[in-house]
Amino acid sequence: MLKDVQSEKDLRHIPLRRVGIRGLRWPLQLLDRAEGVQHTVARVNMAVALPQEERGTHMSRFVDVLQDFDAISLDKLGQVLERLKSHLQAPEAFLELRFPYFVHKTAPVSGGHSLLDLECVYEAEMGADDRLRLKVQVTTPITTLCPCSKEISDYGAHNQRAHASIEVELHEFVWIEELAQLAEAGASAPIYGLLKRPDEKFVTEQAYDNPRFVEDAVREIALRLEPDPRFAWYRVVVESEESIHNHNAYACVEKGWSDAV
Amino acid sequence: MLKDVQSEKDLRHIPLRRVGIRGLRWPLQLLDRAEGVQHTVARVNMAVALPQEERGTHMSRFVDVLQDFDAISLDKLGQVLERLKSHLQAPEAFLELRFPYFVHKTAPVSGGHSLLDLECVYEAEMGADDRLRLKVQVTTPITTLCPCSKEISDYGAHNQRAHASIEVELHEFVWIEELAQLAEAGASAPIYGLLKRPDEKFVTEQAYDNPRFVEDAVREIALRLEPDPRFAWYRVVVESEESIHNHNAYACVEKGWSDAV
Amino acid sequence: MLKDVQSEKDLRHIPLRRVGIRGLRWPLQLLDRAEGVQHTVARVNMAVALPQEERGTHMSRFVDVLQDFDAISLDKLGQVLERLKSHLQAPEAFLELRFPYFVHKTAPVSGGHSLLDLECVYEAEMGADDRLRLKVQVTTPITTLCPCSKEISDYGAHNQRAHASIEVELHEFVWIEELAQLAEAGASAPIYGLLKRPDEKFVTEQAYDNPRFVEDAVREIALRLEPDPRFAWYRVVVESEESIHNHNAYACVEKGWSDAV
Amino acid sequence: MLKDVQSEKDLRHIPLRRVGIRGLRWPLQLLDRAEGVQHTVARVNMAVALPQEERGTHMSRFVDVLQDFDAISLDKLGQVLERLKSHLQAPEAFLELRFPYFVHKTAPVSGGHSLLDLECVYEAEMGADDRLRLKVQVTTPITTLCPCSKEISDYGAHNQRAHASIEVELHEFVWIEELAQLAEAGASAPIYGLLKRPDEKFVTEQAYDNPRFVEDAVREIALRLEPDPRFAWYRVVVESEESIHNHNAYACVEKGWSDAV
Repeated sequence: MLKDVQSEKDLRHIPLRRVGIRGLRWPLQLLDRAEGVQHTVARVNMAVALPQEERGTHMSRFVDVLQDFDAISLDKLGQVLERLKSHLQAPEAFLELRFPYFVHKTAPVSGGHSLLDLECVYEAEMGADDRLRLKVQVTTPITTLCPCSKEISDYGAHNQRAHASIEVELHEFVWIEELAQLAEAGASAPIYGLLKRPDEKFVTEQAYDNPRFVEDAVREIALRLEPDPRFAWYRVVVESEESIHNHNAYACVEKGWSDAV
Repeated sequence: MLKDVQSEKDLRHIPLRRVGIRGLRWPLQLLDRAEGVQHTVARVNMAVALPQEERGTHMSRFVDVLQDFDAISLDKLGQVLERLKSHLQAPEAFLELRFPYFVHKTAPVSGGHSLLDLECVYEAEMGADDRLRLKVQVTTPITTLCPCSKEISDYGAHNQRAHASIEVELHEFVWIEELAQLAEAGASAPIYGLLKRPDEKFVTEQAYDNPRFVEDAVREIALRLEPDPRFAWYRVVVESEESIHNHNAYACVEKGWSDAV
Repeated sequence: MLKDVQSEKDLRHIPLRRVGIRGLRWPLQLLDRAEGVQHTVARVNMAVALPQEERGTHMSRFVDVLQDFDAISLDKLGQVLERLKSHLQAPEAFLELRFPYFVHKTAPVSGGHSLLDLECVYEAEMGADDRLRLKVQVTTPITTLCPCSKEISDYGAHNQRAHASIEVELHEFVWIEELAQLAEAGASAPIYGLLKRPDEKFVTEQAYDNPRFVEDAVREIALRLEPDPRFAWYRVVVESEESIHNHNAYACVEKGWSDAV
Repeated sequence: MLKDVQSEKDLRHIPLRRVGIRGLRWPLQLLDRAEGVQHTVARVNMAVALPQEERGTHMSRFVDVLQDFDAISLDKLGQVLERLKSHLQAPEAFLELRFPYFVHKTAPVSGGHSLLDLECVYEAEMGADDRLRLKVQVTTPITTLCPCSKEISDYGAHNQRAHASIEVELHEFVWIEELAQLAEAGASAPIYGLLKRPDEKFVTEQAYDNPRFVEDAVREIALRLEPDPRFAWYRVVVESEESIHNHNAYACVEKGWSDAV
């Protein structure tokens, strides 16, 4: 019988907030609003809290638990955390999945179909009270066109790829597709995987007609998120890869400003 | 006279937590305990809070302020934030610098000298009350050797490169070199830029004599940080690039456990 | 009718080696030796050669071509290149797909099943003669244990995660799984997603029994690749994330040494 | 006396192209055209060829050699390689340094000064004949504005940050600053660290007046490089972070097209 070193008593009496594994790559099957199922590949972090009297956790059990699930989508995260808590005999469990996700886009004039890739994060936590705390973060690429550049220039305006990141804590289920759509409320123009010439003319003029600072972008998105009862909390960050500089501009807003003003 | 679009009134009434620039690369001159001065290159984030009635901030002023300082080291961050608040007429200012930093190491047997590179972050914040809040994070590479693998195996033990990250909120000045030394309290053996054969023998045996789980590593470091009056707060994370897996093991502890137990 | 600027005559008379798109993220369905099909997400580069008299290529057609294929696996790359050449009226076409791929591993003692993620690249090129040139690169995580450290130390030996990268130009189809297995010929011990205590004892002792410099590792792999008639060319790189340093050791060998010696 | 395992005879008879260290971080002092000296931090790769009869190289000697030089700039690379060859008794030596480098920019209207960061690579190789082969690669951020979008749209034109990478093999010394200036020949407008409103108006209109596909950009740069006798070879790649897509457009040209046409 091999000795179980992890289960030794620890005499330093220091409880640990988190002990676990990071950077595990894992194939996922997610719910896709249009297609039913979407396959992707995630980076996984999993952890538990470690009571002060235990020397270590059993790291292989994190992978055990993951393997017990055929498909892990948003609605399964609570079950994964319950299993983690029981299988690792832990008071708290934590799970984070980072993955690319594709949404379907229709070009504005030609109607051509294409995919657009988003960066997403699911973050789930369960404490001693067994309450599930669930966050979703979706980062959507958009175009921003600078209002100042447009106003002061005789012609043209600098514009660029930007990324609108919406992070929400959920009371209720939300589709990734819904958050991507909300992100486009902050755009000068949306971004597509495929545009034909008439589409390119359309989005060029659309962006010029809708100039947006990063400050405008986060405010437009926050206006729509603030009253939505599905979100216990949210944070919006828009970061713009300024075409006239080699650094980015960004703005950030969080839930709660409507109480403050 | 070119119109100042950023200074327009904003009618959406949404105050923004942060507006600024990200990812600006900038040459730094830092205080070096051994050499007096060390040159490095940082990634800079700078931001201010934006009141609800203003449409935008003046992004170029962030770079203006940075350029006003010949050298930016830990003891200058308060001045940079004051300048940001006044030059951008903002209620709050924020600054983050991420940079590599070199410390000098002496090989344990040969006495050979070498450099070791650390990843560091300075984070500084100043609110309406002009109080400076200062954090330093230092990530130090170390070796960890698995106590379980040593115990259960007839010979050998898996070991690997790990990174110990110590983040502290400061009451008083601290040298990066001091945090790097504290990190090595969690190591099975320290890491060096240069080792000759007698040194390699030494650190191999040293690691085998001091097996450490990531749980042990963070606890050893926390034991030393908890009573130190210079730190208002701290967080320790050790992440171990397990040589027997393609994912990492990690553990995390924060200040406050001595109250709890 | 919108003007076709790309089709203008170019008067600079400079033929371009490659014009195309980079960094496109795309869902893939690949052939999986064990399961039949494996879903993953790739980064795609696609390009064509541009004759001197043409000003530009039509970038949207790259995505058009990709969308015409339901599933893109190794045996379809020739068809993709033919389609690129005809749809973009180009003399040469080029395609590169980078993606994670999972192989199934069985733990050496417990027999437990787990997944291991590899980094893979498919690179395909077709010139004016319509001949397909196909390369596959597979990067497999392995453990290396230092022969010098073992020899000179009274006990223990430093070891670490390493990556063995095998790149081959193909005469015939090869499974990703086969290249991953070849990579393990260079390992002190293979790496698994999941190991129980008896497995951990086994791989710890296995690594100690098979010490390998990066020089040994690439030679062991090259010995097996050199006589294999399926490979028109190969390159092997093993990079070891030295646990006693903060930098890596690496070695590289290419096909042809058996002629030279 | 500790055994020298690396110096054992190897019976597999496989000569290795390269054996060395990768990813070593190292402080550099470079020649700066304006300031005399510039400090930066590099990632270093160093390697030698390994004859078939030797089992391994002595990895610590790479760092030894690096430490022997106070400052490593372009004109010292030959000396470093000579020292590597003799200290490691190797027939060939190789060195690569990757580092950020700052150039000084003057805003086009206000005359304001700022820094712009470039990504640079020095690559040096010395074979059995002791001839030094030296390459420099400089990647400069620029703005590109799409000629098609401008032509077909009633107003506006999409534009974005792009990166122009010039890699040259040298007959003679070249300043990084010169390659950065050449890169701007391919830009719709140059990029600056700091622009005031009159400058922003200027570069916005400048970009609109100089629309450039990536194809145009590489050709404009190649026209200037091709006749320059300092360059034994060159490659130009321009990659444009398309503001209307989430993927990039790129073009590539190499020396030799003037012979071909």
